[in-house]
Amino acid sequence: MYSYAELKHFAKQIFLKMGCSETHAETTATNLLSADLRGVDSHGVARLSGYVRLWEAGRINPTPNIRIVHESPSTAVVDGDAGLGMVVADFAMKVAIEKAKVAGTGWVSVRNSNHYGIAGQYAMQALEHDQIGWAMTNASPLVAPTFAAERLLGTNPIAIAIPADKQPAFVADFATTTAANGKLEILQRKNQDAPTGWMQTADGQPATDSNTVKNGGALLPLGGDRQHGSHKGYALGAIVDIFSAVLSGANYGPFVPPFVSYVPLHPNPVGEGLGHFFGAMRVDAFRPASEFKSHMDNWIETFRKAKTTSEADQVLIPGDVERQATAERLRDGIYLLEPVVKDLGQLAEKFAVPAPTAL
Amino acid sequence: MYSYAELKHFAKQIFLKMGCSETHAETTATNLLSADLRGVDSHGVARLSGYVRLWEAGRINPTPNIRIVHESPSTAVVDGDAGLGMVVADFAMKVAIEKAKVAGTGWVSVRNSNHYGIAGQYAMQALEHDQIGWAMTNASPLVAPTFAAERLLGTNPIAIAIPADKQPAFVADFATTTAANGKLEILQRKNQDAPTGWMQTADGQPATDSNTVKNGGALLPLGGDRQHGSHKGYALGAIVDIFSAVLSGANYGPFVPPFVSYVPLHPNPVGEGLGHFFGAMRVDAFRPASEFKSHMDNWIETFRKAKTTSEADQVLIPGDVERQATAERLRDGIYLLEPVVKDLGQLAEKFAVPAPTAL
Repeated sequence: MYSYAELKHFAKQIFLKMGCSETHAETTATNLLSADLRGVDSHGVARLSGYVRLWEAGRINPTPNIRIVHESPSTAVVDGDAGLGMVVADFAMKVAIEKAKVAGTGWVSVRNSNHYGIAGQYAMQALEHDQIGWAMTNASPLVAPTFAAERLLGTNPIAIAIPADKQPAFVADFATTTAANGKLEILQRKNQDAPTGWMQTADGQPATDSNTVKNGGALLPLGGDRQHGSHKGYALGAIVDIFSAVLSGANYGPFVPPFVSYVPLHPNPVGEGLGHFFGAMRVDAFRPASEFKSHMDNWIETFRKAKTTSEADQVLIPGDVERQATAERLRDGIYLLEPVVKDLGQLAEKFAVPAPTAL
Repeated sequence: MYSYAELKHFAKQIFLKMGCSETHAETTATNLLSADLRGVDSHGVARLSGYVRLWEAGRINPTPNIRIVHESPSTAVVDGDAGLGMVVADFAMKVAIEKAKVAGTGWVSVRNSNHYGIAGQYAMQALEHDQIGWAMTNASPLVAPTFAAERLLGTNPIAIAIPADKQPAFVADFATTTAANGKLEILQRKNQDAPTGWMQTADGQPATDSNTVKNGGALLPLGGDRQHGSHKGYALGAIVDIFSAVLSGANYGPFVPPFVSYVPLHPNPVGEGLGHFFGAMRVDAFRPASEFKSHMDNWIETFRKAKTTSEADQVLIPGDVERQATAERLRDGIYLLEPVVKDLGQLAEKFAVPAPTAL
């Protein structure tokens, strides 16, 4: 177990060594570690060395000139100048929030960026302003649309955070696939099969072997197959891709740059880097914030107290699971798998900084 | 088979007899019939008598004073004054489009409305303005969230229409459940079972009998069960509900008024009528429209030409199926089931107008 503060400090040192400014290193470490806190282990410090390799490959600019390149009262396009996704996303979300303060809502599409960790973190930045926050991103192609035997989309997550009053906020944050890649990695480690509807082989046949995607197969859109609504998951993933990249001028679909540095970039890119999309909606641009938030409390309480399918279960509100993980991990620490500990040790050596100390 | 013009004319006469203005009758008939054209038979003229019964029960106001009750540069809340959903939706979508012309985007939440037919029709209104259109609505509770043994949400559809250049527009329009209720009605008529993951019984057990929902069961959110991502479909349905009703002051969740007039209204409503949500995003508030649309063409062509899982299938673009249905039905006519023909005949008699003549 490692404390949040220890891991965040370590990550920050690495980003400083990469040449990031103090502010950027702090922002990146905070956003990276939010994944570990919220229980999305696949997107946290486990990926730190991946970001380092992208920087070594020249695909991440540690001192980006992030700027607005186009705007209207409620919209903007941001060019991330190939910066770390966490820094670019933080900048863009702040633009959306400021636009919303004046125009009621703010919508920002981003090009020339890199992977930004988890989406929910950015959507939640709107909450303290009594705004609804949105965050989406496209990602390296891993998903086959309905009837396709090719990887054409990323897991393209959607996060939406909605403030309440006495109740904690409603925070949905999910990949538009049946299961996120991180869930598959857990099964791979345990050498277990996955349920049906998660994956297909490289030639498009249904598969449950948890190594299928590693072996050239694809994840499936939410729904799994046509009979179970996979065309809807495909549409959602497509919408995230179009809002993140076609609106901004980033790469879309199969052209999105891979996260792993050893996979070459597409020889004929259709845009710059990968793309994100952010939104902020001021609640009182619709109705008084106190009214809205008290009805959100009632909405949440109504759903929480619903009759359940079994005594052991309860109806959850989006965000409940991640909130519980955060409380536990702030209290007990963050557990890292042995390969991750080793990975961080190698980074410590490479950059001549102290490795994180276990609790 | 009935011609589109014949059925639309008939529907319009009925709305005129209900006391609607010429303009409102025309708008309502056009939007109702768009469902028949697009192949969503459950939401077209088959529902005409349902709207009449809601009017007879005093739940639809044929001469509503639809108005903006709150606004900011990019947002508005519209009160539908209990009008027909098609008329209220048409008004609200126009507000969103006009807001977008000035502010870049426009977002309108609607209260005190009724069922509005299919969502896609309103989203598509943005296309001719080089805008991306959004339409959502909540609906009568039929869906059990993950782990719930109660109906708490409607099938709460999401429609998003995105313009392209030479390619036809991308038009996603889908219920946030595994399968729409209309699909179930088709199986009921054929006395066939449904696939797993569509429904559960009144006490929350998985079910495939296509009469399950009729008998007090519930539809399931997209994903079907927790293992297949139903918490994501639940989150989507919840977001539609909150944007449509908590932002506007309509009824949400289990409080949404039922479509069938014989089911009583909730004794303790939390708002007025049911709610919708519309959005319009001017493409050139992000990048020049010609650039965006030519990249949309490329996006669509890239996906269309993807390798497929079998020779018989092809990768479809959202909107393809409905576009084909529209072309066929404008050419060959619209087929109505015998009970629908009988229903329309009874309406003709009741209102003393000529029944529609078959082709």
